[in-house]
Amino acid sequence: MDQKRCAVASKETLMRIFTVPEAPDSTLSKIELEISSNLAGFLNENIAAIEKPLHEIEKDFQSAVIPEDPTFVSAYAQDIMEQLVAHSVHTAAPSFIGHMTSALPHFVLPLSKLMVGLNQNLVKIETSKAFTPLERQVLGMMHHLAYGQDDAFYSKWMHSAKTSLGAFCSGGTVANITALWIARNRLLKADGNFKGIAAEGIVSAMLHYGYKGLAVLVSERGHYSLGKTADLLGIGRDNFVAVKTTDDNKVDIAAMRETAQQLAAKGIKVMAIVAVAGTTETGNIDPLDEMADLSQELNCHFHVDAAWGGATLLSDTYRPLLKGIERADSITIDAHKQMYVPMGAGLVLFKDPAATDAIEHHAEYILRKGSKDLGSHTLEGSRPGMAMLVHACLRVIGRKGYEILIDKGIEKARYFADLIKADDDFELISEPELCLLTYRYVPKQIKQKIAQADEQTRLDIFASLNRFTASMQKRQREAGRSFVSRTRLTPAQYAHQPTVVFRVVLANPLTSESILQEILAEQKALAKTDPVFKKFLSKYMD
Amino acid sequence: MDQKRCAVASKETLMRIFTVPEAPDSTLSKIELEISSNLAGFLNENIAAIEKPLHEIEKDFQSAVIPEDPTFVSAYAQDIMEQLVAHSVHTAAPSFIGHMTSALPHFVLPLSKLMVGLNQNLVKIETSKAFTPLERQVLGMMHHLAYGQDDAFYSKWMHSAKTSLGAFCSGGTVANITALWIARNRLLKADGNFKGIAAEGIVSAMLHYGYKGLAVLVSERGHYSLGKTADLLGIGRDNFVAVKTTDDNKVDIAAMRETAQQLAAKGIKVMAIVAVAGTTETGNIDPLDEMADLSQELNCHFHVDAAWGGATLLSDTYRPLLKGIERADSITIDAHKQMYVPMGAGLVLFKDPAATDAIEHHAEYILRKGSKDLGSHTLEGSRPGMAMLVHACLRVIGRKGYEILIDKGIEKARYFADLIKADDDFELISEPELCLLTYRYVPKQIKQKIAQADEQTRLDIFASLNRFTASMQKRQREAGRSFVSRTRLTPAQYAHQPTVVFRVVLANPLTSESILQEILAEQKALAKTDPVFKKFLSKYMD
Repeated sequence: MDQKRCAVASKETLMRIFTVPEAPDSTLSKIELEISSNLAGFLNENIAAIEKPLHEIEKDFQSAVIPEDPTFVSAYAQDIMEQLVAHSVHTAAPSFIGHMTSALPHFVLPLSKLMVGLNQNLVKIETSKAFTPLERQVLGMMHHLAYGQDDAFYSKWMHSAKTSLGAFCSGGTVANITALWIARNRLLKADGNFKGIAAEGIVSAMLHYGYKGLAVLVSERGHYSLGKTADLLGIGRDNFVAVKTTDDNKVDIAAMRETAQQLAAKGIKVMAIVAVAGTTETGNIDPLDEMADLSQELNCHFHVDAAWGGATLLSDTYRPLLKGIERADSITIDAHKQMYVPMGAGLVLFKDPAATDAIEHHAEYILRKGSKDLGSHTLEGSRPGMAMLVHACLRVIGRKGYEILIDKGIEKARYFADLIKADDDFELISEPELCLLTYRYVPKQIKQKIAQADEQTRLDIFASLNRFTASMQKRQREAGRSFVSRTRLTPAQYAHQPTVVFRVVLANPLTSESILQEILAEQKALAKTDPVFKKFLSKYMD
Repeated sequence: MDQKRCAVASKETLMRIFTVPEAPDSTLSKIELEISSNLAGFLNENIAAIEKPLHEIEKDFQSAVIPEDPTFVSAYAQDIMEQLVAHSVHTAAPSFIGHMTSALPHFVLPLSKLMVGLNQNLVKIETSKAFTPLERQVLGMMHHLAYGQDDAFYSKWMHSAKTSLGAFCSGGTVANITALWIARNRLLKADGNFKGIAAEGIVSAMLHYGYKGLAVLVSERGHYSLGKTADLLGIGRDNFVAVKTTDDNKVDIAAMRETAQQLAAKGIKVMAIVAVAGTTETGNIDPLDEMADLSQELNCHFHVDAAWGGATLLSDTYRPLLKGIERADSITIDAHKQMYVPMGAGLVLFKDPAATDAIEHHAEYILRKGSKDLGSHTLEGSRPGMAMLVHACLRVIGRKGYEILIDKGIEKARYFADLIKADDDFELISEPELCLLTYRYVPKQIKQKIAQADEQTRLDIFASLNRFTASMQKRQREAGRSFVSRTRLTPAQYAHQPTVVFRVVLANPLTSESILQEILAEQKALAKTDPVFKKFLSKYMD
């Protein structure tokens, strides 16, 4: 190993690591200063524009042996700038509109450092003290945003030891799992000799209640985490039933009702229906009020997965799109999506403060009965104080500030949809209901060809278009100037054929209209040099 | 609302939040500078020593209404310094020896800021690029630490798209859940017409395989997250069987074998046995080799919950204590415990790189088949780049550096045990095997009283001692100079009667021998003024 890089392990050098901060002129301090004074500049300068292939990046992360000797912090900092930071993803770039992750407000950086320095563990009061009431307040605020109960309700429940208005978690997946775990346990609760599913498990529960199985219904646009949840909870992915959507990508309520009836006839109990608000792939919101009605009919739990779209509640302008959410038994919202909080801040809200009774647990050394320890009602155990960053954003941005951000995002998506529709070489696949839309590149002459083609040729062209769209999306990403993501939909206008599309999410406040124009221009230019597209043209356009 | 504190929401002020960093002389920048230049000083000065009662703290977190208007960052920073930071817990203080959280190395602070600024999402390569190979390398290094496979193994599997050597997660609870989820799904795999538990659920699985139920066996000292796991996975807490321990707090293998036989006779399949290395409450390590043998006998999954003790593998001196861990099918290790990484860094390792096949999942827009996206093998979805901080600690501290830290912790615990044993007014309840021990305050005259008392009086005294120990622990915490935690054990020396004890974890490198002496002195002084103790004395010592 290089001698200059290699420190000597001794008690004294170790004590220094724990007691002496980096010197102001050290490599790491300089990096930090750059981040503090100009994050966007730092990211622009240090993240390489041109994509390095993954197998090349992997060469820097080959050894599976933990180095015996220490490395100087400066040497390490140098290494990760070159090997890691340079080849990370510029998620905050205004032209990277394919993710749900966007720019962060500057103040979250010093606050994150404060959070890490305090190193609280939110599982219990003994390791988090004031962070516990703070987290409960954030849950209360989000609960109020969704359910709008009165002051008396929050005075009674927000800081109550017995209940939780929600649970913070690392992200929307754990939030969805928690919600459906509660739904399952409330349905199959203790009854007579039966001690409840939490104690006895599913098999006994099915025997006691006389069900042959459990099912969860959601639209075919539901997030993949729900299938994972069905597996984890022992229900099985086959009993997590995807119901078709109408042409606007919203669940077909009649089809959902029919599915529930068919399941009931087979002795399978629908334990929950899940609404999506908005879907990951098209940004649409299921008809929440109708689903609330259906859940009453079916006497089942009603969960809304608003991981991405939930922040829309902060805008009085667009809040009506989520009407009916206040009737949900539980709601997932990710603060690290449209609330501009750094990664790792999901939450689930419960209409009924006693909902978490169904998953309550205790231990001898913490989470004792009657304590206000948050950990007795969460899936996770030890957790960091991320609630502080949500608290900070709610206070510093304020509801009105969020309203502006949400409204601008949706307006920007409409502007982009108009740009796409006005251009003969593009095709809008899904209209933006929130700030998300899908489209693809189909040059005018191909459109004409499709219109004239017979059925088989049409299908051939569609298949080629799919390959081409995927290839173009990859090339655009590799070029490093901009990024749109892609997914595969089954749009009505293409007879529900699998259709690969570009997908954009316009939540970054720094994305300008001119950037959107440039992205379309770049795609047109890319198409001209795309090998898949050339083959395609030569095949169909001779 | 106070006009000075209240900003106006406008597109321009919002753009500023996203583009203009805090000024160097702003409140938040000053706070950050203090943290950077002297974290310990910052924590000592800003965290109030005297405990404010929780109901008082809650007054600052009462409103459930999200403020309409924005707040200036400086005003917010001021507020949280007074309301939150002042009443948080000084987890890094060398005299706070009750937690598994201790001091952090300084370099993790600027690195955390870099991590937050980059805001990568490790669920997929498109939002994490080089962070994905980095995380795979860290998993590889930890796998090598535990299982020590050869170079060829890691070249083949570490960066393979099809497999995972482990999974990063927010903490040990998710790690344990992931391990047992895999154990369940591998046992009840697809077979003939049966599509596997992941697809069909537990009920079908039980019918197909002819089991009446599933069970998980662990010692009575197992972590509470395992009961939660049994609930979540649909097995039921009653089928999560706590097996008694021998006098050294290690699981009684004969009793575990017998339990397994009794369950088998009832048609219940033991799907996994879980070893603890070391237990949360006493720090002891189960006999791993014998448990590995037993798991072979029972043909079941062998999981080791080494959330806390796993870091001991980094010390060549004490590594032999974990002999047999290399035979485990899966291992949980929390880097945020004895590896000095900030909160939020758990991981689970799998002996067999194909283990995660049992929980593999895909989606249309990410985690496509053949991709190297980490998210297709994790319980969580979106996740931050915490792996970078583990990577940094492994490189900067090095294996030898960790060895020194681990060894010093264990030696310190032995020193403290000797102090306790040398003092007539204390009683060591559990010897330190790692750096954790339990004890209580029992003044000499009470010890004599116990020795002479009849059975009923003895039980009465024990009950009083329990109340007194709990009261003293609380008062010591409230006084704010030091902190020990408490739990309730059933030690052999007290005929397995419930016994409340002080519990200390000596991982903080800054905890000195003189601090340990002071803690005992403080406890003696506290006892003299303890109201419960006074009542106690007056009752038994007239």
